[in-house]
Amino acid sequence: KNRARFLIQCHDRQGIVAAVSQFLFEHDANIIDSKQYTLDPEGGEFFMRIEFECANLENQKGVLEKDFQQVAEKFNMSWKLMYVEQFKNMAIFVSKEVHCLLELLWEWQSGDLMGNIALVISNHENAREIVESHGIPFYYIPANKDIRNEVEEEQKKLLQEYNVDVVILARYMQILTPEFVKHFENRLINIHHSFLPAFIGANPYKRAYQRGVKMIGATSHYVTNDLDEGPIIEQDIERVSHEDNEADLKKIGQSIERSVLARAVKWHLEDRILVHENKTIIF
Amino acid sequence: KNRARFLIQCHDRQGIVAAVSQFLFEHDANIIDSKQYTLDPEGGEFFMRIEFECANLENQKGVLEKDFQQVAEKFNMSWKLMYVEQFKNMAIFVSKEVHCLLELLWEWQSGDLMGNIALVISNHENAREIVESHGIPFYYIPANKDIRNEVEEEQKKLLQEYNVDVVILARYMQILTPEFVKHFENRLINIHHSFLPAFIGANPYKRAYQRGVKMIGATSHYVTNDLDEGPIIEQDIERVSHEDNEADLKKIGQSIERSVLARAVKWHLEDRILVHENKTIIF
Amino acid sequence: KNRARFLIQCHDRQGIVAAVSQFLFEHDANIIDSKQYTLDPEGGEFFMRIEFECANLENQKGVLEKDFQQVAEKFNMSWKLMYVEQFKNMAIFVSKEVHCLLELLWEWQSGDLMGNIALVISNHENAREIVESHGIPFYYIPANKDIRNEVEEEQKKLLQEYNVDVVILARYMQILTPEFVKHFENRLINIHHSFLPAFIGANPYKRAYQRGVKMIGATSHYVTNDLDEGPIIEQDIERVSHEDNEADLKKIGQSIERSVLARAVKWHLEDRILVHENKTIIF
Amino acid sequence: KNRARFLIQCHDRQGIVAAVSQFLFEHDANIIDSKQYTLDPEGGEFFMRIEFECANLENQKGVLEKDFQQVAEKFNMSWKLMYVEQFKNMAIFVSKEVHCLLELLWEWQSGDLMGNIALVISNHENAREIVESHGIPFYYIPANKDIRNEVEEEQKKLLQEYNVDVVILARYMQILTPEFVKHFENRLINIHHSFLPAFIGANPYKRAYQRGVKMIGATSHYVTNDLDEGPIIEQDIERVSHEDNEADLKKIGQSIERSVLARAVKWHLEDRILVHENKTIIF
Repeated sequence: KNRARFLIQCHDRQGIVAAVSQFLFEHDANIIDSKQYTLDPEGGEFFMRIEFECANLENQKGVLEKDFQQVAEKFNMSWKLMYVEQFKNMAIFVSKEVHCLLELLWEWQSGDLMGNIALVISNHENAREIVESHGIPFYYIPANKDIRNEVEEEQKKLLQEYNVDVVILARYMQILTPEFVKHFENRLINIHHSFLPAFIGANPYKRAYQRGVKMIGATSHYVTNDLDEGPIIEQDIERVSHEDNEADLKKIGQSIERSVLARAVKWHLEDRILVHENKTIIF
Repeated sequence: KNRARFLIQCHDRQGIVAAVSQFLFEHDANIIDSKQYTLDPEGGEFFMRIEFECANLENQKGVLEKDFQQVAEKFNMSWKLMYVEQFKNMAIFVSKEVHCLLELLWEWQSGDLMGNIALVISNHENAREIVESHGIPFYYIPANKDIRNEVEEEQKKLLQEYNVDVVILARYMQILTPEFVKHFENRLINIHHSFLPAFIGANPYKRAYQRGVKMIGATSHYVTNDLDEGPIIEQDIERVSHEDNEADLKKIGQSIERSVLARAVKWHLEDRILVHENKTIIF
Repeated sequence: KNRARFLIQCHDRQGIVAAVSQFLFEHDANIIDSKQYTLDPEGGEFFMRIEFECANLENQKGVLEKDFQQVAEKFNMSWKLMYVEQFKNMAIFVSKEVHCLLELLWEWQSGDLMGNIALVISNHENAREIVESHGIPFYYIPANKDIRNEVEEEQKKLLQEYNVDVVILARYMQILTPEFVKHFENRLINIHHSFLPAFIGANPYKRAYQRGVKMIGATSHYVTNDLDEGPIIEQDIERVSHEDNEADLKKIGQSIERSVLARAVKWHLEDRILVHENKTIIF
Repeated sequence: KNRARFLIQCHDRQGIVAAVSQFLFEHDANIIDSKQYTLDPEGGEFFMRIEFECANLENQKGVLEKDFQQVAEKFNMSWKLMYVEQFKNMAIFVSKEVHCLLELLWEWQSGDLMGNIALVISNHENAREIVESHGIPFYYIPANKDIRNEVEEEQKKLLQEYNVDVVILARYMQILTPEFVKHFENRLINIHHSFLPAFIGANPYKRAYQRGVKMIGATSHYVTNDLDEGPIIEQDIERVSHEDNEADLKKIGQSIERSVLARAVKWHLEDRILVHENKTIIF
């Protein structure tokens, strides 16, 4: 298609929207969708996502990127121009529990993910059959904290080989090194099985059961080097009762994890997420 | 304050956003919030709400309105310029059940409604004390279908006298004439005690109970002359079970009605609602 | 295991609970879970589900069933004694859209359904591979209204051959004959893609879009010969906005359909549903 | 009315339900509603709430209480017999923010609370008018941490004078002494403005905003001497977005606080809550 999106971030001041929309008008582009947000109307940070259609986009790319440079400089913008047709490559990391992986496979197979599942990496073998039956390469890389660096070397080689843009931790139960996390900053999506910041860390369902909460949740976030403290992308919850034991919470929670992670991945693939400090703006 | 909002609607084509934002830039206005929507990217209807701040707005009003005329003509826009400081005047119509009225009084008293409750009109006396205790004029106008025209004459006189912009039917159980409805087109907000289009018409809780639904809801909509068929503004629902009898449904439903109507009124007062054919766009 | 459940229904009067619990006590059974409901405390219908554990259940079955006959006669009960170990056999009927089928396969494979998927019948071939990969027999039976009786003959033969207890219509887009429906009374579960009674009949998402609703839903119900009017088992909804077009509604709706149908099937398999007139009691 | 409720708690073993229901049958009582729960079917704690109707209850009270003593002793039960007609006396403590107080007043005035609001105590004057307009005594007791003991002396005298059964902290921003808390164990209900255990302690909305959560909540719980760690009675949440600033979160949160506290109070008044260790069982 002939669609593309600008993601723009800069200090707010008068004339930004006028300049961007004028630019698109002059380049014969039709705005399809435009969303903006200003952190603080009195001179805060400005964020914008603008999707447009432009006849003969393939041949216009160079011109658009070059010409926009001027607008960007004037307002001191950080910006990206993403082409809708260029699907992002995903790697999915998974451990023993495959419910989140299955959900992503199902969304992908239904044509609902604007991205390619380039490969799946697991420290267990049990997902191989289902992954390979979708024609997706599956790599079994045993992992534990003693061999963390070797494991990541192998993973990084594969990610490079497959040109991976974004890594999805679909219940991958190994900790990643700060270097790995840094390398995939804002491109490394995790699903945590609690309503953060409640129950940070291990065994959230067990602790939720012990605390006697009346609702449980799940949280998808970009991974940073502060455990479970990265920018939250999406959360959801379900009601539970005293009749639900720990196993029930886990079961109910898995269903929440599936949909929360799927939404977060979808939004990332569609360039709907901007990160500012420790928060996300979702357009 | 120095804030105002454009509400714009026209046929979509290239350059609209550029023209409007350029106009604001040239008039030294800072965009605070902007939302837009196009019904169909291939040449459908275009909708926009743009809130801006403009130093010394009081003296600029004339210029803004006159100058925008040119932009509007170019794109054949229907448009409104609303000043945030000019609060809308509401009339609340209510019958015996006062829960929705109380919710609006509470929101208003908390400073959460950008509008004035100019008066309350009821065909029952029971709300008088609470209304008058807020310093709001209360008018008791007995009503039934045989005296509909006389009743509406009296009501219309009061609405004119109080310069009423929007009429809220907060569980007002009388039918209004087509003339009245027409006169307040898109300015007459009703709360219906079901999840429309389920249970159109009378006794929705009774029918919901008989049907054995597992959730009940409420719907706020602009009134048209097709019963319960006007553009839906907001809906919400709550879970019920076989243990809830008709009285329970009514009780649970009242709580939904309160919040659904309050949200609809708030959005109307903040000029967040555009109506297109039989639907609303909520910005 | 040594678990079983009584499902009891009778006219309410004093002493029912005492009689049933005394019976279980005398037969050395331990009550695990007990739920009851009376339609109207002044002499309405009484419903009860009581799950118990009984050492050496296998050899006690005959005695339990024979002895309970006396209790049942005294209170004129209709009752069933279900053994937890005896899983029900399901047949899943599906047409082109497989999302609900996939959800049931996933729940079943995760060990979350207390039932066997005995076979899948479809009037399309596209689900064959995924069904057979789970080791479940798949039957392709082309269907249309002109050959309805022949089709049902074939289906009934299969249902008998596989000893099917319950038929799940997981988006099966063919109408069944009154005889078929009657034969599987309260054992034929459908998923309708709207929040019933809104949008009964065909094309609910299209009509929901046209009506401009702010929430869409799905409803699982037992099929009767009144289209979409059977006893509702479960419903759920999601919020939508003016930005969602018909295809978006369908996509969002599919996710609701999946979880609503899965819950309904689970409850049926666990004998949690009693039907009274046109309503369900869910224990 | 002739209604009463048993609340029963004991170690699970065979025959409890049989004994209780037999007792009621022999005393000519009709079971209206009965709910039970066993923490662990293999010999855990057993909980039961059983509501019944008994002709001429007034004169039967002595007999019922005396006779049940035998049943209770046999199973080593802790139990309470509550008469529906005997409404509990509530004291509401409130500080500056009155939204929760108003909700309780509204529920009470609508006849939806099975309890009396005996008095309101505040460390601010601003709620006086609205409280007294309902004919409820209002006491202004200035409070701060330096005079905590004197303040509580005064409060305790009032609570005794008004025969108060349950104290509701409807956004009362003073800390209570361990003695006070101990005295009102499981009869002191607080509303915390976060989805506990997230944001324990002060300024939850501010911290929720800083953390960038996508949902905010409120929690009602019995107060213990561990800050915000008491048994949770009810929780609820609402979705928020990056567009909501701290003031918006507070506003949205207030609406959640109102309904969560109202539900918790209602359940307490109807004897629906049993406390076991740090959890609640809600029947």
